[in-house]
Amino acid sequence: MTIDLRSDTVTKPTKAMLEAMIQAPVGDDVFREDPTINKLEDRMAQMFGKSSALFFPSGTMANQSALKLHTNPGDQVICDKYAHIYNYESGGASFNSGISCKLIDGEQGKFKANQVLEAINPDAYYYSKTTLVEIENTTNKGGGACWDFNEILKIRKICDDNNLGFHLDGARLWNALVAKNETTLQYGNVFDTISVCLSKGLGCPIGSVLIGDDPIMQNAIRIRKIFGGNMRQAGYLAAAGLYALDHHIERLAEDHKRAKEIGDVLNDLSIIKTVEPIETNIVIFELQTHIDETIFIRKLADKNIRIIGMGGGKLRMVTHLDYTNIMHDKLLTTLKHLNY
Amino acid sequence: MTIDLRSDTVTKPTKAMLEAMIQAPVGDDVFREDPTINKLEDRMAQMFGKSSALFFPSGTMANQSALKLHTNPGDQVICDKYAHIYNYESGGASFNSGISCKLIDGEQGKFKANQVLEAINPDAYYYSKTTLVEIENTTNKGGGACWDFNEILKIRKICDDNNLGFHLDGARLWNALVAKNETTLQYGNVFDTISVCLSKGLGCPIGSVLIGDDPIMQNAIRIRKIFGGNMRQAGYLAAAGLYALDHHIERLAEDHKRAKEIGDVLNDLSIIKTVEPIETNIVIFELQTHIDETIFIRKLADKNIRIIGMGGGKLRMVTHLDYTNIMHDKLLTTLKHLNY
Amino acid sequence: MTIDLRSDTVTKPTKAMLEAMIQAPVGDDVFREDPTINKLEDRMAQMFGKSSALFFPSGTMANQSALKLHTNPGDQVICDKYAHIYNYESGGASFNSGISCKLIDGEQGKFKANQVLEAINPDAYYYSKTTLVEIENTTNKGGGACWDFNEILKIRKICDDNNLGFHLDGARLWNALVAKNETTLQYGNVFDTISVCLSKGLGCPIGSVLIGDDPIMQNAIRIRKIFGGNMRQAGYLAAAGLYALDHHIERLAEDHKRAKEIGDVLNDLSIIKTVEPIETNIVIFELQTHIDETIFIRKLADKNIRIIGMGGGKLRMVTHLDYTNIMHDKLLTTLKHLNY
Amino acid sequence: MTIDLRSDTVTKPTKAMLEAMIQAPVGDDVFREDPTINKLEDRMAQMFGKSSALFFPSGTMANQSALKLHTNPGDQVICDKYAHIYNYESGGASFNSGISCKLIDGEQGKFKANQVLEAINPDAYYYSKTTLVEIENTTNKGGGACWDFNEILKIRKICDDNNLGFHLDGARLWNALVAKNETTLQYGNVFDTISVCLSKGLGCPIGSVLIGDDPIMQNAIRIRKIFGGNMRQAGYLAAAGLYALDHHIERLAEDHKRAKEIGDVLNDLSIIKTVEPIETNIVIFELQTHIDETIFIRKLADKNIRIIGMGGGKLRMVTHLDYTNIMHDKLLTTLKHLNY
Repeated sequence: MTIDLRSDTVTKPTKAMLEAMIQAPVGDDVFREDPTINKLEDRMAQMFGKSSALFFPSGTMANQSALKLHTNPGDQVICDKYAHIYNYESGGASFNSGISCKLIDGEQGKFKANQVLEAINPDAYYYSKTTLVEIENTTNKGGGACWDFNEILKIRKICDDNNLGFHLDGARLWNALVAKNETTLQYGNVFDTISVCLSKGLGCPIGSVLIGDDPIMQNAIRIRKIFGGNMRQAGYLAAAGLYALDHHIERLAEDHKRAKEIGDVLNDLSIIKTVEPIETNIVIFELQTHIDETIFIRKLADKNIRIIGMGGGKLRMVTHLDYTNIMHDKLLTTLKHLNY
Repeated sequence: MTIDLRSDTVTKPTKAMLEAMIQAPVGDDVFREDPTINKLEDRMAQMFGKSSALFFPSGTMANQSALKLHTNPGDQVICDKYAHIYNYESGGASFNSGISCKLIDGEQGKFKANQVLEAINPDAYYYSKTTLVEIENTTNKGGGACWDFNEILKIRKICDDNNLGFHLDGARLWNALVAKNETTLQYGNVFDTISVCLSKGLGCPIGSVLIGDDPIMQNAIRIRKIFGGNMRQAGYLAAAGLYALDHHIERLAEDHKRAKEIGDVLNDLSIIKTVEPIETNIVIFELQTHIDETIFIRKLADKNIRIIGMGGGKLRMVTHLDYTNIMHDKLLTTLKHLNY
Repeated sequence: MTIDLRSDTVTKPTKAMLEAMIQAPVGDDVFREDPTINKLEDRMAQMFGKSSALFFPSGTMANQSALKLHTNPGDQVICDKYAHIYNYESGGASFNSGISCKLIDGEQGKFKANQVLEAINPDAYYYSKTTLVEIENTTNKGGGACWDFNEILKIRKICDDNNLGFHLDGARLWNALVAKNETTLQYGNVFDTISVCLSKGLGCPIGSVLIGDDPIMQNAIRIRKIFGGNMRQAGYLAAAGLYALDHHIERLAEDHKRAKEIGDVLNDLSIIKTVEPIETNIVIFELQTHIDETIFIRKLADKNIRIIGMGGGKLRMVTHLDYTNIMHDKLLTTLKHLNY
Repeated sequence: MTIDLRSDTVTKPTKAMLEAMIQAPVGDDVFREDPTINKLEDRMAQMFGKSSALFFPSGTMANQSALKLHTNPGDQVICDKYAHIYNYESGGASFNSGISCKLIDGEQGKFKANQVLEAINPDAYYYSKTTLVEIENTTNKGGGACWDFNEILKIRKICDDNNLGFHLDGARLWNALVAKNETTLQYGNVFDTISVCLSKGLGCPIGSVLIGDDPIMQNAIRIRKIFGGNMRQAGYLAAAGLYALDHHIERLAEDHKRAKEIGDVLNDLSIIKTVEPIETNIVIFELQTHIDETIFIRKLADKNIRIIGMGGGKLRMVTHLDYTNIMHDKLLTTLKHLNY
């Protein structure tokens, strides 16, 4: 039994999800004739109260497309220094859209409305033109932290006042909704575009969805085609998504509970320096200075427990659908008895 | 019963293929841990005698990545005026790679080595720099025509002499191999990079593979990530590919035979002006000037037969895995008795 | 005495022009405070009946900026196969704007309105989006040919009907105006943007101007800055332009007369196969097949006469401000007595 | 008499410089036949001990070209948060080269070698690839501060160890050389490419030069052409540069002396909160919180003294060639007697 806590992307479909997949009616989505894709897209648009949704092979492509839909080459997008689009998408914002990021020095990946205001460039031709604000909820590098919805509303106001688009990287939005008891409609109401992932907390093998209103979404299928994200009988993947929407959202509370329990154990260990506040399914912690990170990871690996480093001395564990009670017990026990 | 001849991309997996898919061991391919993806990539590399292969969600992305791997912004790629990369990829060559196409006025999508030589720009800084030659085999817009391998060898020589890369868009290479009794190793030996499609003749739901040698392929995974083509448990899709390699290649001869039979019937019809030579599974034909294209398509649609126009008065039928004997008989009968 | 007929770009300022240059009041144009730049831009805008004009260090940058102002990445611009923007700007259209060219196979660099109509891509997401038509008047590679203004009006109509921008590369527009007795207002009335060159027929050392209406021109200064075309005390260059507008336009008729006389002499030579029709200051001709191009060029060079090849067996001579009567006589005599 | 301290770019050529300009032999630099351009480029290359130099119409274009020469789309360049390439080039790094900046939080625009080391991205395909380090000397937004050459050498070492290019934005390098008694050869020895400006401290109307070794410089002329920076008889501008190299470098010490004297006066004023350390010709200072910035600027403007704000409550004065002794006396007197 391997306990893989590196990411919630490592999950494999359950039997029931696989069954739903192979039963799905499919068609050629390049001709827009896949009924299951269409059903998922319709459902997603409706859930968020938007007119349009489009399926993507990855969250990276959904985000990169959103950036392109909102900007012109040379523009600047305001985001947190921890933003996935800046840190973990291979420089795609500049490669694909020719844009740059103005990074805000936030807390756990979150920032304040007044920081947005300060980050907007003056309106002169030698400055890059600020056209978009992007946030991530929950924050990945920020330890799964959830945004305060009131702050989001304040940022929306600033976007309106300054003619800026507002995009949500909702790779783990489902976790935020469950943790904070919020709704998709709330989010659809405030953001221009939202990307959500089916393959993290929801446990699907592949896929993300970009949601928004026309006219901004009208060009999304063209951008997806340019990147090569057009797929043929993709309904098999959409079927997993539909299944997950019905069966895998509420259970995220369980992942959150376990993450907090892991945090509690870590907090008690003398080799741990700090554990970041845990709101959802991500546990980020630092070892005491004298504890070697590589050795710590290897010690766990020797017991078939896999975790990853986040850089800068931070380590991460993520709970998920495939992380069971038995695994949880074993992990906690192992942590408590680590040989130091 | 609908007879869909618009493209060989409309096929749905057979029961056996679906079975192979759900049995596949999978993992997170972003971590490069999907055993079935790895198996397909290894097998593909080996088939073509190359060191590397990478799975893509679409042929468009495989081609667009190849263009990027071979070029720098401002460069020019030589290809046929019918090339898929120029005509049907949404301007992606310029969007993604910042490159332009020098179009050769070929025959059925094929051109001669001396035409390549003439198309190379002089070496001066005010010309775009020619760095790549791209061909398609079989040619889509060229009616499924197969290249003469000797001409390919001559073009290779010109590429070598002029320091040009050589990429094959092998979306329907399997059809060419079967029709001309050629081998993957032959092609691997002459091209720097080759994209092949799993979802056309081979009948898979999703996927293409880009094959080549290091070092040019070393950057492929980065480019795929930038486009957002990285997927998680993609092994389900790779499993379909592995199944198709074992079971769906030889049967392409059947598609070719039926395409020729369709061509023979069309040739006998007085309403048909010309039928392009048929070598594989694509039938392109023109109606007599006085026959209205839209009405012709609708007449067939009324009998549940779907075909598409290619622009410029040309119509296309494509045979494929889901086109059965019964359908074939009905099509031929229908064509012979069309009410004109 | 060297007779340099390679291009009309080789001219040097006259004494009077140099005098006008050093007398010019200047300022920092990055702050938009150069009075001579402002005067030239105002005058140019007025001449063409447009609201805005902007000075550029080169015609290439004026054209490249216009392409960017009219298009988004992935778009397609319709132009002639001889177009300067396709052939002689180092692939800049793709590099700078991420766009591609749909080349029309015109006559002497000119095409017909119905050819534009055929070149517009269908409105589907897998085609590049056609957004601009570009023409060159006079045509450089087309031998200085002038467009029929009625054809231009027909193309304007097609642009209107299809929501396409219409840009004129007027590097040698002054020659067309003089040759056809047309006006700048006529051209300003029909094109969205026009680039004109100060350093060819007009004899200035440096500079081009892009002219158009707001709002399309509002972003021009930003694009110019991105390319690095912002200059400081550029009024010295603008002063040359102002001088040339007053003194060097009407005299272009003289260049045209001489070009025709050169053409007449060439037409009588047995070693010449064809001379293209001469409307302005460019003479393009082909040698008989048995006459070696390199030797011909060298024979003239030995007599201090410089001309250039245009590729494909074509040679070019261009008359200009620094090509005097004495040079003209010597050239004609030399051509008549060439030793073959 | 207007005292313009907004920038050292507002200078106008002296009589002697203008005389040198109009006497210059010129030619068509697109054909590379301008003898004065060639002379300036040769001299610059030699001064820095490099094999190649190229004239540009602006420092922005010289920098943007250097970024392109060193990087591929998607790459990341390490620079200070105050860097001109990030702040004042209209987002050109992303527009032109498709790259992003990793900003270091330095002091007065300068950072430490170990900060570079920390800023290099890990070698994984989902990170942007770090390929270049860029510094500015003197720093503009950093108040004309000069780098410690030993720190530069340490950064060079890190570049070597990590296969990174090293570019110097030397818009005001001449000021640093004079202030620190350093040599061009020192800088040529340590950087791969260097841009220097002729139109700031040196007092020329237009122009910058990019200096480097082959092979990296071989593509520079192509990149310049793509941006449209190719000019015709540019020798007039180069002549100003040659004149300035002979006559305007040593006198920068005078600008520095005056800047320090301005700083001393400001430091004594009760309305001034802080004056940044002054090493060269830039004076950056902050007003006391209760002093309104706009009113302060207007008070000076009323006395024909022009200065500018830098954002964030900072104001800037720059001394230069056109700032005379009489102006200096008047400025100091005015400052001392400002009515508050």
